[in-house]
Amino acid sequence: MSTPLIEPRTLKGFRDFLPDRMLLRESILATARQVYRSYGFAPIDTPALELFEVLAGKGSEETDRQMYHFNDAGDRHVGMRFDLTVPLARFIAQHGPALGLPFKRYHLATVWRGESPQAGRFREFMQCDYDTIGTTSIVSDIETVLVAHDLMVALGIERFQIRVNNRKVLNGLLRRLGLADHSTVVLRAIDKLARVGAHAVGAEIVAGTGCDGLAASTVVRGLAARNEPAEATLGRLDELAGEDELGKAGAIELKQLVAGVAAAGVASGRVVIDLSIARGLDYYTGTILETFLDDLPAIGSICSGGRYDNLTQMFSKTPMPGVGASLGLDRLIAALEELGRAGTTQSPAQVLVVQFDAGMTDWYLRLAADLRRAGIPTELYPEAKKVGNQFKYADRKQIPLVIVAGPDEKAAGRVQVKKMADGSQAEIDVADGVDRLLDWIRSALAG
Amino acid sequence: MSTPLIEPRTLKGFRDFLPDRMLLRESILATARQVYRSYGFAPIDTPALELFEVLAGKGSEETDRQMYHFNDAGDRHVGMRFDLTVPLARFIAQHGPALGLPFKRYHLATVWRGESPQAGRFREFMQCDYDTIGTTSIVSDIETVLVAHDLMVALGIERFQIRVNNRKVLNGLLRRLGLADHSTVVLRAIDKLARVGAHAVGAEIVAGTGCDGLAASTVVRGLAARNEPAEATLGRLDELAGEDELGKAGAIELKQLVAGVAAAGVASGRVVIDLSIARGLDYYTGTILETFLDDLPAIGSICSGGRYDNLTQMFSKTPMPGVGASLGLDRLIAALEELGRAGTTQSPAQVLVVQFDAGMTDWYLRLAADLRRAGIPTELYPEAKKVGNQFKYADRKQIPLVIVAGPDEKAAGRVQVKKMADGSQAEIDVADGVDRLLDWIRSALAG
Repeated sequence: MSTPLIEPRTLKGFRDFLPDRMLLRESILATARQVYRSYGFAPIDTPALELFEVLAGKGSEETDRQMYHFNDAGDRHVGMRFDLTVPLARFIAQHGPALGLPFKRYHLATVWRGESPQAGRFREFMQCDYDTIGTTSIVSDIETVLVAHDLMVALGIERFQIRVNNRKVLNGLLRRLGLADHSTVVLRAIDKLARVGAHAVGAEIVAGTGCDGLAASTVVRGLAARNEPAEATLGRLDELAGEDELGKAGAIELKQLVAGVAAAGVASGRVVIDLSIARGLDYYTGTILETFLDDLPAIGSICSGGRYDNLTQMFSKTPMPGVGASLGLDRLIAALEELGRAGTTQSPAQVLVVQFDAGMTDWYLRLAADLRRAGIPTELYPEAKKVGNQFKYADRKQIPLVIVAGPDEKAAGRVQVKKMADGSQAEIDVADGVDRLLDWIRSALAG
Repeated sequence: MSTPLIEPRTLKGFRDFLPDRMLLRESILATARQVYRSYGFAPIDTPALELFEVLAGKGSEETDRQMYHFNDAGDRHVGMRFDLTVPLARFIAQHGPALGLPFKRYHLATVWRGESPQAGRFREFMQCDYDTIGTTSIVSDIETVLVAHDLMVALGIERFQIRVNNRKVLNGLLRRLGLADHSTVVLRAIDKLARVGAHAVGAEIVAGTGCDGLAASTVVRGLAARNEPAEATLGRLDELAGEDELGKAGAIELKQLVAGVAAAGVASGRVVIDLSIARGLDYYTGTILETFLDDLPAIGSICSGGRYDNLTQMFSKTPMPGVGASLGLDRLIAALEELGRAGTTQSPAQVLVVQFDAGMTDWYLRLAADLRRAGIPTELYPEAKKVGNQFKYADRKQIPLVIVAGPDEKAAGRVQVKKMADGSQAEIDVADGVDRLLDWIRSALAG
């Protein structure tokens, strides 16, 4: 070619996924699908590109600013989706009658945000949302928490905690104390409790809201008791709500939530009440949940969400309540990496058939086909290179077992099979079929 | 809200996928993953957005014209990928040494092309590619055909035919007849054979290339014998190649391909030689394959690909040969729809637990959790609406089984379960656990 070469590179903030990470991602996504489906959530997908007017002004000022948008060849102003919630709202408003309510969907898809690239922040990432639309029933709130719980268990994460709250409790308390207009200041202060202590937080609330010290200390004592048992928090809810109707409603919902989760068999201590969590200040109106790993709390919530009043308000006059949450795939993978549980295997193959003799290709093809038919992912090395090179390939890709056979073995109806991890090996008869070989393989893979 | 409502709509040429179609897509993609993995192909992913210079000029003039491209907020000229081959080339050139060769990857991902929207053409669609990079071994060509075969079988398609060819045979014949510069004209004419007959095709070749009638008829007889048995075509290959080295090499490869596929146990007649297929004129250099459904040949090839000489020529001076193919997801789904096999179920749930009594929520939650733990996807209706409405919901979503229990059943430790399809039902004891209920459910779902 006379064309000058182009430097192969990715855009800043964008990533290639090599097989080791992609195998992990596919495995997590398969687990998410299986758990979401077990509750009757059904998959949907929507376009990556939407009309700009559909996306704009629906998230925050920040998402508007970060949106990738442009005029297409037909001079339509289009944008790339920055979340899966706005597309869901558009989808429900557009297809509502065809879907039937309540509508339970999951959506695993890529979104784009032109954020300033920094550690752990990407301009392209996947979201894994599940939501129940069209009902205000607390049962759907309970299920949202149960899905987060089952997901962690199915992912093999044993040490985690789901923190739940209800915005009505929070807002009711602030309203009762005359602080309803100062929720941002209060919650920002409460957030620092672990670092700066109760006294400093109270002072910040007084300074930021102009309230008296008694109100501030009521808030701090009320919201910030992170380490008390759930029963104790439940016992305080009525006191916190006082005569405020909103607070009382929130207290009832939170009690039902905790009771329902326990009724479904969730171990005590896995779901705890944390009255200080708020998850953004404008969107959620009832239940809120966050999921933290006991071993890596600082990495933040792995699965978060809550209840909202009206998903489709930009598109329709019919209010559409909903509740849902989202698994943070990148954060989960960062956590698994930090915990040394992310894996490094480069291949889905469990067996490499070495090509010892180029004249035996058809024989190798047959052997590999027999193993595959028995459910063993099997790679045949494509060339009759030196056996040592082919073993190196298996080692590099972390393929656990290698099969070698030359003309002598073929004549005798036998193969040699070796386990790479410990070097154990055997010579096995395959003249009458691969059953004995399969036994050896299955036992080697299990051991 | 005082904001004016926005009309909820998708862009022309873009699609929402509702649960019925999305369940089908997820099932096909899961099958593709499983088959690709069974041969040791490993998943990768690349960004949707690439630098414009990485994408431009790599496909055809048409793909350049159809590309979505724009300047991002940092004034970088970026484009949305229009296929998965150019990103693969960039990926290999960038990560080559870290991957090791041969490199077998699959890539299931969305691509975008601003085509004129028409029936069956979309501006956003998924590609499902698998390729083996870095080897010229015929074994990889054979495996490419085997994967296409196994994929059709795994998808439950019984009546299909994979047509194979080798561009060297084609080019050798044309070169021997002095028609090497006229391949476009010749192949376009050959394509019409079934419609217009041998005589008219011969005349078109003479008119288009200026060759004599003998050469034209050699081409027509040589390439166009679609219905002869593979053995007969194989027997003619040497004659077609004559003394042309390229043609002779192609004949050998094609024979090895057919022999290797048979050695792996593929039933005779499933893979046939069709010397007239070319699949684009510039890209492929050896093996070519196409996959047709016996019941819907007119829908076109469902899985196509071939061998190429140098994937990475735009990015690297090291030639990088490869062979691969791609499952056409949209075309396959269109075919399944036309064959009445696409399915209409709207939910992954197999059981709906009716909420008969709002006071029994915790009891229902427990029952649903027990069924889920046993592997039965179970939806709990979120509200205690009229039982008839809840049955309608199950019917609409095509959830096959419904469980009803009120206070009497709860007191007696029993539930009523009904199969929606035939109305058969039973009252089953659950006082000591759900084992008997599970037996009934599994037998009803199997029957």
